[in-house]
Amino acid sequence: MNQVILLKDRPKGKPSLKDFEFTEEEKPQPKDGEILLKTKYVSVDPYLRGRMRNEKSYIPPFEVGKPLESGIIAEVIESKNKNFEKGDFVNGMLQWKQFQTSNGNGLNKVDAERAPLKAYLGVLGLTGITAYLGLDKIGKPQKGETLLVSGAAGAVGSVAGQIGKIKGCRVVGIAGTEEKIDRIQEKFGFDAAINYKTTNNMKKAIAEACPDGVDVYFDNVGGEILDAALANMNKYGRVVNCGAISLYNKTETPTGPRVETTLIKNSILMQGFTVRDFVKDFGPAQNQLAKWMEQDKLSYLETVVEGFENIPQAFIDLFDGKNKGKMIVVV
Amino acid sequence: MNQVILLKDRPKGKPSLKDFEFTEEEKPQPKDGEILLKTKYVSVDPYLRGRMRNEKSYIPPFEVGKPLESGIIAEVIESKNKNFEKGDFVNGMLQWKQFQTSNGNGLNKVDAERAPLKAYLGVLGLTGITAYLGLDKIGKPQKGETLLVSGAAGAVGSVAGQIGKIKGCRVVGIAGTEEKIDRIQEKFGFDAAINYKTTNNMKKAIAEACPDGVDVYFDNVGGEILDAALANMNKYGRVVNCGAISLYNKTETPTGPRVETTLIKNSILMQGFTVRDFVKDFGPAQNQLAKWMEQDKLSYLETVVEGFENIPQAFIDLFDGKNKGKMIVVV
Repeated sequence: MNQVILLKDRPKGKPSLKDFEFTEEEKPQPKDGEILLKTKYVSVDPYLRGRMRNEKSYIPPFEVGKPLESGIIAEVIESKNKNFEKGDFVNGMLQWKQFQTSNGNGLNKVDAERAPLKAYLGVLGLTGITAYLGLDKIGKPQKGETLLVSGAAGAVGSVAGQIGKIKGCRVVGIAGTEEKIDRIQEKFGFDAAINYKTTNNMKKAIAEACPDGVDVYFDNVGGEILDAALANMNKYGRVVNCGAISLYNKTETPTGPRVETTLIKNSILMQGFTVRDFVKDFGPAQNQLAKWMEQDKLSYLETVVEGFENIPQAFIDLFDGKNKGKMIVVV
Repeated sequence: MNQVILLKDRPKGKPSLKDFEFTEEEKPQPKDGEILLKTKYVSVDPYLRGRMRNEKSYIPPFEVGKPLESGIIAEVIESKNKNFEKGDFVNGMLQWKQFQTSNGNGLNKVDAERAPLKAYLGVLGLTGITAYLGLDKIGKPQKGETLLVSGAAGAVGSVAGQIGKIKGCRVVGIAGTEEKIDRIQEKFGFDAAINYKTTNNMKKAIAEACPDGVDVYFDNVGGEILDAALANMNKYGRVVNCGAISLYNKTETPTGPRVETTLIKNSILMQGFTVRDFVKDFGPAQNQLAKWMEQDKLSYLETVVEGFENIPQAFIDLFDGKNKGKMIVVV
């Protein structure tokens, strides 16, 4: 039999285990042109919370009573498709099932020789590529500028900050525990870090950590930290709106200070994006990230949870910041 | 003697006549390398309100007790500078004085043969160039897209909308009187118009006037109209944050719905600017606008007020929408 995880209810506020349902189905058989996949590693990411809402977005919402999906590394255990062989590993948006079939569309083979398989869900996968392309296409950090990163200890933020260092920026990170504050400076080489949970005036804390102002703000959290960053942006500053995890579980429309006057006064750009906007750039981005890894310029951390049955809890734990780096479930 | 207008007090809320003071001084004499200028036409613009606050911005604030300044067309009535001759007309940021001297820095000669002098304060001046460069550098309207413009009957908005038509867009304007609604459709050729003062649901009104959504929003007003526009933006939409006149007279920090989730969901760009960001592009922009004028593709309106002593009232009237197109004082 084949275990499957369904969306039972759309979460209200923070997701909980009762929003998920486990079910079993017959193990599927591949038809001509299809492959049979065995799930090996499952990525859980904050953006999945958005797909649990019944709202128009860049990707259709999950349906209640249907399987969830996310980035998954799977092994080809049977192939009736000439492009894949038994024993290949593939990466793609796949369902939360132990086994599934696919016609191969949207799947990429991954090279287990070049990097550990799990890295293709993190630093060489969508999170690393998100950091790379958010900076390359929007933030455009220049040597000597100051890059501020929120969610700096996370899978995207830690890569964004390290890229800032490679580009010659002063890099300042924001995170929510002392352990993370240490980690982003010691492991990831940030120049300074701010613990937003123990700082009562973020605007002032950013001003102190960024004495020349902020040129690029890579934002993973939104909300009041974004407000404080905006108040410190230099003329021609760029805000990369990558995520807004502080708002994802809100049940009412969040309000805050209006941004338009600030944008005009300092000629600031704010741009939202999702990594899928730049699909054609994934190959070169992954290749550059792999080179930096080989040159030891890019560190990463993973929190690895074991067991298919723990996927929902691993996802929920993201909202309590329980992960250190990329959260991955090994099946 | 030479009349001068000073900033007497920083306005609280909407400016009033008591914030201005008239004084007299000796008529100045040009030194070697200088020219003596006689003020002919004075531009009054909403952005001057920002300079009346004691706040860091793209341009230093006005000082209390010192003369105000704005875009002015002046005649050279005496020259001790080899780059200017008596009888030349110049355009530049000059003080609210009947006569003043200058070393010529920052002044541009204007060609009275090509267009009426007043046009260099409006459609061929900073307002027209602002519309042109805001679209050229940020909005980038493409043929077949929908361009929404607020403050559409104003000096910047009316040019922005007409450029949208020249580029092949569906163009929808927002304004606050029925007379303006008629004007932007009949005189400026917009495809549709919305009167925000008689519409109780702007989000719905924009959705109806823009059945294919909004690709580019050229915003002169900020506030709740911006909120309604953002709710109607298409994927990859661009918001040109040119002005926020609805907020300029607020005495407390204005709040509203947070934008970051909307920006991320639809990969939207918001960018503030001031026309001075693009000084090197002024020449080509003015030249293109003059060509469109010569080809009768660009209409404009002016509200002309007579008398140096009426400059403050003309400025105040901007905030009641009393002008039709560019507000100019002829001295």
